[in-house]
Amino acid sequence: MTESSPALAAARDEVAAAVETMLDRLLPQPEGSTARLDEAMRYACLGGGKRFRPFLTVACGDLFGVPRPRSLRAGAAIEMLHGYSLVHDDLPCMDDDDLRRGRPTVHRAFDEATAVLAGDGLQAEAFAVLADPATHPDPGVRAELVAGLAAAAGARGMVGGQAIDLAAEVRTAAGRPLDYAEIAGLQALKTGALIRFAAEAGAVLGQALLEEKAVLRDYAAEMGLAFQIADDILDHEGTVAELGKAIGKDAGAGKATFVSLLGLEEARAKARALTTSAQARLDRFGPPAAVLQALAEFVITRRS
Amino acid sequence: MTESSPALAAARDEVAAAVETMLDRLLPQPEGSTARLDEAMRYACLGGGKRFRPFLTVACGDLFGVPRPRSLRAGAAIEMLHGYSLVHDDLPCMDDDDLRRGRPTVHRAFDEATAVLAGDGLQAEAFAVLADPATHPDPGVRAELVAGLAAAAGARGMVGGQAIDLAAEVRTAAGRPLDYAEIAGLQALKTGALIRFAAEAGAVLGQALLEEKAVLRDYAAEMGLAFQIADDILDHEGTVAELGKAIGKDAGAGKATFVSLLGLEEARAKARALTTSAQARLDRFGPPAAVLQALAEFVITRRS
Repeated sequence: MTESSPALAAARDEVAAAVETMLDRLLPQPEGSTARLDEAMRYACLGGGKRFRPFLTVACGDLFGVPRPRSLRAGAAIEMLHGYSLVHDDLPCMDDDDLRRGRPTVHRAFDEATAVLAGDGLQAEAFAVLADPATHPDPGVRAELVAGLAAAAGARGMVGGQAIDLAAEVRTAAGRPLDYAEIAGLQALKTGALIRFAAEAGAVLGQALLEEKAVLRDYAAEMGLAFQIADDILDHEGTVAELGKAIGKDAGAGKATFVSLLGLEEARAKARALTTSAQARLDRFGPPAAVLQALAEFVITRRS
Repeated sequence: MTESSPALAAARDEVAAAVETMLDRLLPQPEGSTARLDEAMRYACLGGGKRFRPFLTVACGDLFGVPRPRSLRAGAAIEMLHGYSLVHDDLPCMDDDDLRRGRPTVHRAFDEATAVLAGDGLQAEAFAVLADPATHPDPGVRAELVAGLAAAAGARGMVGGQAIDLAAEVRTAAGRPLDYAEIAGLQALKTGALIRFAAEAGAVLGQALLEEKAVLRDYAAEMGLAFQIADDILDHEGTVAELGKAIGKDAGAGKATFVSLLGLEEARAKARALTTSAQARLDRFGPPAAVLQALAEFVITRRS
């Protein structure tokens, strides 16, 4: 496996385009007196993003022969949930960010109240998409998807992780930044829970064995942590032009990062070890898993 | 039917106590590094509120012999969704309220970031509860409940209604307040959608006929509008001591209300006509529907 896989790049481009089309179709069309809200929800989700989570759902679904229209719907729902979390994380009372993906954040492009509501609406729409019979004819599969997304999104998932992250800032300001285990635990909730579910959702749609679901969750957990370590390394090394957001912000605020805690070399080694382990878990699926193994490689070698 | 029904009062007290117990059990227990978030979620939902929506779910479920543990779980999920909407509506960038049910609002008792996250977490937990097999053994019922709640909560439901309400303030400031049809349309989304679903959920749990679900939705739609008209009348007449919130705020801001648009007498007559119609819809269910008919009466005769 090379660091840059042409097959992966082509697969990611194809899925990203299909996800964009699906999101465009599923998100409410701007209409009447809710037009501003509708525009904000679309602005938050369309025209940007790596589409990393929906790609995971689609590629994991492919392992079990899941029809693309189903995995793309589930992937789009997960991307709506992800989009809502970014809108709320960027709010003045949270991370107070003006830029996201090189564009004004939703509360800057619209206003703060619309940003809160757009996030709220995106979360509801994500569940609406999963509960729709078009996502899977078996209601048991739909209910399992909803339960999985709700767990990944809630107080013991993404929202809990964000709350811990806010509390960490208070600790940092008091001179007691988090240690490695605490940051890894925080990330396992804040970003890991949804990444694990994105992979598992492909297996749920494929009505895979419990054991297969667990393997994909574990693969995604290791890749997700490697992703965050790589993010910290990029943040440490990056430039404004490459990332489209203020650089070194986390480090500049005295906040503990994987790089500040482990040092650059050990952080790189840790990301590599996680990636190798994640890739090995997929050997049981044989050649069809090559694209997911290449994705894990990409996560730690990307430049943005 | 008298204005104050002892049977209704007893039934409401019983359900309110059971909802409190169910919410206490279903909401995450304060724990470890998410304790502050957990506390905020519990603060938002426990120890207050009329429990109007869960009572609707339980009383409608009773018509079809739905076991109480199921209708109470669904009712608690709906109350979590309602609680989240109040937390976000009270935020400084929205209605900027300091008091709710006579207590500091969540962003005043905790902080703004925690209030945003507590609302986000409550929405996720609501879906988690509905998707759980304990709510109903048939996954088709669970998926239908999730789809119904998501529709009631989203851009064409509660969140859309709140967005229209915010836009209405801009129009009011520009000297063009909403007319009756526009306010009724706004309320049908902002509060009506969840009230309709609360009634329908009882029928969904009871695997009732499509027609029975429609009758309960229509009953709840009329009662929900009567509820809002009665709210405006109470706001017009009320005192701080009775309501536990700043009085005359809506009217004082030059905002159109049902009272300002219709006048007090016509508003009363409209609420009465809606209530009578809502009650008549339930005749098909016979004596077991008496408590729901008394509820409709209560909605327009309550003093707070």
